[in-house]
Amino acid sequence: MATPLTKNELRGVIPPMATAFDARQDVDLALFEREVAYMQEAGVQIAVVGGSTGEGAMLNPEELASLTEVAADGGLHAIGGIVTTNTRDAVQRARLAGAAGASALLVAPPIYVEPTETALEHYLVDIAEAAQLPIVFYNHYFYTTPVLRRLAALPEVIGIKESTVSVIAELAELAGDDIAVSAGIDPTPLAGLIVGATSVIAGVNAVIPREATEVFKAFEDGDLERARELLARIAPLARLMTQPLDFPACVKFAINAMGREVGDPRLPCQPVSATAGEPIREALKTARVLQPESVG
Amino acid sequence: MATPLTKNELRGVIPPMATAFDARQDVDLALFEREVAYMQEAGVQIAVVGGSTGEGAMLNPEELASLTEVAADGGLHAIGGIVTTNTRDAVQRARLAGAAGASALLVAPPIYVEPTETALEHYLVDIAEAAQLPIVFYNHYFYTTPVLRRLAALPEVIGIKESTVSVIAELAELAGDDIAVSAGIDPTPLAGLIVGATSVIAGVNAVIPREATEVFKAFEDGDLERARELLARIAPLARLMTQPLDFPACVKFAINAMGREVGDPRLPCQPVSATAGEPIREALKTARVLQPESVG
Amino acid sequence: MATPLTKNELRGVIPPMATAFDARQDVDLALFEREVAYMQEAGVQIAVVGGSTGEGAMLNPEELASLTEVAADGGLHAIGGIVTTNTRDAVQRARLAGAAGASALLVAPPIYVEPTETALEHYLVDIAEAAQLPIVFYNHYFYTTPVLRRLAALPEVIGIKESTVSVIAELAELAGDDIAVSAGIDPTPLAGLIVGATSVIAGVNAVIPREATEVFKAFEDGDLERARELLARIAPLARLMTQPLDFPACVKFAINAMGREVGDPRLPCQPVSATAGEPIREALKTARVLQPESVG
Amino acid sequence: MATPLTKNELRGVIPPMATAFDARQDVDLALFEREVAYMQEAGVQIAVVGGSTGEGAMLNPEELASLTEVAADGGLHAIGGIVTTNTRDAVQRARLAGAAGASALLVAPPIYVEPTETALEHYLVDIAEAAQLPIVFYNHYFYTTPVLRRLAALPEVIGIKESTVSVIAELAELAGDDIAVSAGIDPTPLAGLIVGATSVIAGVNAVIPREATEVFKAFEDGDLERARELLARIAPLARLMTQPLDFPACVKFAINAMGREVGDPRLPCQPVSATAGEPIREALKTARVLQPESVG
Repeated sequence: MATPLTKNELRGVIPPMATAFDARQDVDLALFEREVAYMQEAGVQIAVVGGSTGEGAMLNPEELASLTEVAADGGLHAIGGIVTTNTRDAVQRARLAGAAGASALLVAPPIYVEPTETALEHYLVDIAEAAQLPIVFYNHYFYTTPVLRRLAALPEVIGIKESTVSVIAELAELAGDDIAVSAGIDPTPLAGLIVGATSVIAGVNAVIPREATEVFKAFEDGDLERARELLARIAPLARLMTQPLDFPACVKFAINAMGREVGDPRLPCQPVSATAGEPIREALKTARVLQPESVG
Repeated sequence: MATPLTKNELRGVIPPMATAFDARQDVDLALFEREVAYMQEAGVQIAVVGGSTGEGAMLNPEELASLTEVAADGGLHAIGGIVTTNTRDAVQRARLAGAAGASALLVAPPIYVEPTETALEHYLVDIAEAAQLPIVFYNHYFYTTPVLRRLAALPEVIGIKESTVSVIAELAELAGDDIAVSAGIDPTPLAGLIVGATSVIAGVNAVIPREATEVFKAFEDGDLERARELLARIAPLARLMTQPLDFPACVKFAINAMGREVGDPRLPCQPVSATAGEPIREALKTARVLQPESVG
Repeated sequence: MATPLTKNELRGVIPPMATAFDARQDVDLALFEREVAYMQEAGVQIAVVGGSTGEGAMLNPEELASLTEVAADGGLHAIGGIVTTNTRDAVQRARLAGAAGASALLVAPPIYVEPTETALEHYLVDIAEAAQLPIVFYNHYFYTTPVLRRLAALPEVIGIKESTVSVIAELAELAGDDIAVSAGIDPTPLAGLIVGATSVIAGVNAVIPREATEVFKAFEDGDLERARELLARIAPLARLMTQPLDFPACVKFAINAMGREVGDPRLPCQPVSATAGEPIREALKTARVLQPESVG
Repeated sequence: MATPLTKNELRGVIPPMATAFDARQDVDLALFEREVAYMQEAGVQIAVVGGSTGEGAMLNPEELASLTEVAADGGLHAIGGIVTTNTRDAVQRARLAGAAGASALLVAPPIYVEPTETALEHYLVDIAEAAQLPIVFYNHYFYTTPVLRRLAALPEVIGIKESTVSVIAELAELAGDDIAVSAGIDPTPLAGLIVGATSVIAGVNAVIPREATEVFKAFEDGDLERARELLARIAPLARLMTQPLDFPACVKFAINAMGREVGDPRLPCQPVSATAGEPIREALKTARVLQPESVG
């Protein structure tokens, strides 16, 4: 078992890593290991494995565990994604992820049947207890601040991933003693940070962890001008990583276009076609991570 | 393998059956068998197994198959619910349900990652081909008529379960040659039927199949006055069966209150407390399926 | 002053009449008088003047009054539309409409600043008292049944215009002693009527009042088959009268296409172009109110 | 006529001033003059008159003009609010406001009947031409960036008031040459500024213009820490100024509680009761603009 993450350690740029699949749609641990190494080299310390971007809802518990193990063995603090429909399955995933070396769990509310607040609270506690791991709650259903404060007060919860700026601000102000707030915002992470978030969990981080980290560091150094300048380069890409449909496909297209390899998304998600992906290639060039001449 | 249902056979009151769990939260096939018998006695011919109301999203493929088998062996045309996140898992569920005797599949769009239209179309075709079964599409994400017409044109799709009255009307008018429309409306099934639906799939049907069938028959006989009179009795119950949160719990409370036995919902869904369930008991009395003196 | 309408008189097909404008965008009472005569000949007894469809929000109080007078003098029970932002203006409109012969008022909630429930209640009472006229409340902001029941309990309120079928059903069942429910549904009025509405206020009624009335009568006579058959003819037109943007323009295009004359909508609403209006012309032919050969 | 504002002048904290009413609900210009003086002393240079917060939708054109005149005579660059239903009325308001000394117009889309994009474009141009004044478009209906860019390209439009952070960022990046973006965000203006807004139009500015300006200045000086510290004091008040219902009432309660006087909101808006206003009083104390001992 890894040392559990604490609230104060939940800082910086946290990529929700893409899950690599092979041509038969099976998890490809060898490719994933290279992604882990890429994150390491980019200065990443914490990463989410099997989150939304990582197609976590499409993985079985054993797949989640094997990915977690690779990430942890690769030197990352691995946060295991728990995106499922019910407690029984969530607990199994959490236990296996914990045994495989997860340092925390990123837990979405149970999907499909929206739970009552009480059911949601039990869900989080049951998962945390089973795995003996702290929880970052992923506010996927847009719960409002009163509900989130109640969850924040649970000792099991060390963080909340939130994408609405005003809610980030309220949480940072009203629940900042209990939890760290992670901004789930791709194109405007600075807005999240300036109102109190201390980390960013966003799909674009999985594509260009180094560049995302530079923005974060410039902000932390108080060099707003440079932060905004750096962000301007990657904002077009960030916006393209937040499409409402088939979003893991866009993230994978971008990673593959950069020359790394994560394969196609799991069906029914379709890979992005070369034509549909052209704006992503353009944005990668704007972000200076793709050579103009390398465009095929 | 059962004989596949046809579009024209998709008629009448179709209960989305509750899945019975025992005290350890395991599927209880003996209790479920009694529910199947209850449906039979109520005149039900077609039933959904492991749909939304049946907590299908919380079942594993083997559980779905065993429930399907019980329903089919009990003499019902069983429609297997396919509520999951990805093609691989959906295909496995569909195959097992088909082998267990399903006559059709009620397929929700892949949950969590909302698919593109093309991805959705592939999803349905892949499932139908794997199981060699016709599909009733469950319009869970509120796709509009143009998308639904495209799905209706697939030879694999024999029906669409729809809960918006205006969309039912449009589908019946514009796609009526391709599919049968099933009204997914608990409190106002007559509104769905009068605009062209030929069947009703609604949680309340799983609670009081006989009374729901009487409404349907009165409508079919052209006796509107009686249909409305009968519906007035069960409308309060029907409204209580469509709560947005934890809805399978409400259905189970009602069934258990009538003296049948389906156990508690699977966690994190919580059972409805006696206090919270009091309005359901009242509504059961209005529906004349619970004796006034039987109230504890 | 006209005799106030009662709850029980609020029955049948009620057209929300289009307001005729001349080429300078001024109200054209002569043209409007012809519309009133058209309604009379079609068997209409009650009509809304200056409602949403009648661009009531764009009329000043004097214009509303002059239109009301023409309708009342023409033999209709005129319901004056009160669609404005504040009590002072609403009261002035209501008084003038009452003096001009209105039999009731169709009051939308104050627009732009959404009111509290208490403010809304005061608004309705202030208007009713000033004009000494009964109110039909237009549920424009989608208030839910509990709020509507509170409004229904006001002695000043005789009706609620509602477009959601389930809410119509609940109101008819729970507040039917206090109010009559008017279905604000263009394409599926039968769905509203079968769940308890006793009248229909819908834009399509202003275009083809005779055909809309035939559907209503067939339903009232218990001849469902004929009602559905008649509705099938006009449903395509009805759907085109409920576009979310610039909807008064579509109603006016249809009326003008039939050879009556109501001019263009008031700016910024733009008239529908011949090209954009082609589907409306097609639908008018399906409704059998436009000769195939008359297409220019 | 005042000198029209330019895009580059649209900077800083811009209060949407409350409109003072007397006990008979008439506009009270004497009280309003004192508010203008208060803004001046607080360092405000530009203010909105008769905007949403100023109950502009409830004012007639003459009232709007008289308020504009007082603001302009008091030394402010007055931006006249145009919140109405149609072009004719909007043009009249714009002309009168221009004649009374407005430097620009804050134009909401026509209310009630949502316009097509073309209609909206014509609306803005017609208003600007009639008054010969530049326009700040108030994105009240949540138009997305493509629509807003089209409006931004109009030479008549110098600014867009926007409350969604991601849209502010896109506009600043993609349309920054054409327009200035004004953040319509009460509690987190820093989020708007860091992504590219150059001004803030928010109800809380009308209550505590001095304190809001201090936050802005600290941000402009690059002293983020101080900006956040100052904002923390006023954030609770800012949140209370953005209630969805009857919001002008909350702003007026706060101003009145501080000892200035703007009267009650115009009916049907109800004044906030002492009990309901208690949190506002508490927030004013947190903002250090109300003495603890002054609480009644």
